[in-house]
Amino acid sequence: MSDIPKAIHIKEEGPREGFQSEAPIELARKIELIDALSETGLKKIQVGSFVNPKKVPSMADIKELVAGITAKPGVSYTGLWFNERGFLDALDTGKLDVQGTLQTTASETFLKRNQNRTLKEQLGSLQGLTAMYQSKNVAVTRGSVMCAFGCSFEGDIPESRVVGLVDEIFKISEEHNLDVKDIALADTMAWATPDKIKRTVGAIRDKHPNAHINLHLHNTRGMGIANVYAGLEMGVDSFDSSIGGLGGCPFAPNKAAAGNVCTEDLVFMCEEMGIETGIDLEKLIAVSELAEEIVGHSLPGQVKMGKSLNSIRQKIQSKVTQ
Amino acid sequence: MSDIPKAIHIKEEGPREGFQSEAPIELARKIELIDALSETGLKKIQVGSFVNPKKVPSMADIKELVAGITAKPGVSYTGLWFNERGFLDALDTGKLDVQGTLQTTASETFLKRNQNRTLKEQLGSLQGLTAMYQSKNVAVTRGSVMCAFGCSFEGDIPESRVVGLVDEIFKISEEHNLDVKDIALADTMAWATPDKIKRTVGAIRDKHPNAHINLHLHNTRGMGIANVYAGLEMGVDSFDSSIGGLGGCPFAPNKAAAGNVCTEDLVFMCEEMGIETGIDLEKLIAVSELAEEIVGHSLPGQVKMGKSLNSIRQKIQSKVTQ
Repeated sequence: MSDIPKAIHIKEEGPREGFQSEAPIELARKIELIDALSETGLKKIQVGSFVNPKKVPSMADIKELVAGITAKPGVSYTGLWFNERGFLDALDTGKLDVQGTLQTTASETFLKRNQNRTLKEQLGSLQGLTAMYQSKNVAVTRGSVMCAFGCSFEGDIPESRVVGLVDEIFKISEEHNLDVKDIALADTMAWATPDKIKRTVGAIRDKHPNAHINLHLHNTRGMGIANVYAGLEMGVDSFDSSIGGLGGCPFAPNKAAAGNVCTEDLVFMCEEMGIETGIDLEKLIAVSELAEEIVGHSLPGQVKMGKSLNSIRQKIQSKVTQ
Repeated sequence: MSDIPKAIHIKEEGPREGFQSEAPIELARKIELIDALSETGLKKIQVGSFVNPKKVPSMADIKELVAGITAKPGVSYTGLWFNERGFLDALDTGKLDVQGTLQTTASETFLKRNQNRTLKEQLGSLQGLTAMYQSKNVAVTRGSVMCAFGCSFEGDIPESRVVGLVDEIFKISEEHNLDVKDIALADTMAWATPDKIKRTVGAIRDKHPNAHINLHLHNTRGMGIANVYAGLEMGVDSFDSSIGGLGGCPFAPNKAAAGNVCTEDLVFMCEEMGIETGIDLEKLIAVSELAEEIVGHSLPGQVKMGKSLNSIRQKIQSKVTQ
């Protein structure tokens, strides 16, 4: 158990993951949620996507949203984009932590369905994006692999393919004198189980011992927290998650299926295990309840229903000292 | 990872855990659910409790229930009881797998609140129960520790206290020439996290290397499957679970809080990891949907919403071969 990190970094993705899959939400309420998240101790919050408003109407107000949030010092706000237009819009806000990511996908079938590209074309396009980032003096610090653990269109993804993509990412980084250190592995369609997490992370580590691995996990099949734990055991200290488990999986057969791994459940497990998150769990639970109120239905996170153990310990303690 | 077992044993507790926490359910539908569970490959099903019908009205029909189920050869049906009356009623059915358990609780506060007994009185009462089991030629094969990982009335439970109770259980077993091999650890109020599972199981193993440990886990704080995984890593091969996650935790602050760890999610994880369960996951998912229909609301299990990976693999395969 000595690989378990002493502290972890969490990127809150609830606003992006959640708003895009929920019924339309008022701009003011989106801003209210992000501002509330900023007060919990979270250091990184992804606020939304810079995408075609015709294709993703729920993100049409992204510029107003970024303008409206009260940026808290020490908190980094990020956005997501898939093309030059989105990147330039994000940069234009002047308010976001804008860094370049070399995006790849381990499932060619998924890539073809979603972006009508082969893997070769995708890797080729990274060269163009890189030039664009460099022309704007934007650092390229991150590579990502979507569908890193399996794909509902293609099936199982061998670890060797993920390692091959990570090889490509570091090759491009070297060729273009970039500074890629972070490798994000996304379980886009919730195919991961704890052993698969360990094998994939292990295979990358064997070849790229200095890669700083991030896990973006979905809970569609209930494995989210167990997969986080497997990652922790491999020394992974960087996780994406969503407040309340907001998100839903756009590829899940049932629309009621769980979304991303839930931020407060993740924080609860880590803090109970003595792993620092820097986050106030009670505040986070209150924000999760706010998120439920905003989306108008219950969210899958469990700790908000069971209550934190610290709140129960305090109650017991206050009875003892009375 | 070499401690991970090749196969696990699951005791389905949905009927007992579920029926006692749900609105009244028709006897015929209870029987329908148990008979459906019998067809999934499950080898052990706990059908209900032999308790005071005035205190637990949902179990008032337990005798009719046992009489009504179609016992499938190879499936063992069990019941729960807390006193001589309950035991004799269970034995009287002639249809249940009746074995004696030396029941203990790691939280004295819980014991006082629930059974108005001290730990010393509880341990003393085990002697009387043992005599009763022996008089009926019923084997005493199991010891159990409730609240083994923490208690919402008392707080954290040190591992040493659990080891002390296991010591007592084996001492009684030896003194009375019993055959206790199985030690069941119940996370009655969902205080366990994966590290706590490992420490507690490890501490028992250090002192009693031949104890066959069973974990009864609740998912009230979302840690259920991660705790199972931690148990597997410690070589634990025996788990209790509930179809759909039926159960609810009677001690959770929110009545909508999750119940026991969900059988189909547990089976999904194990089968994906190459650990045999002997259970047909697709049949189990169908029974989980039946359970939802019977209780009249959705149940927390995730795999039934996300679908099994094997069903998706088959779909992909059938497209490839078309």
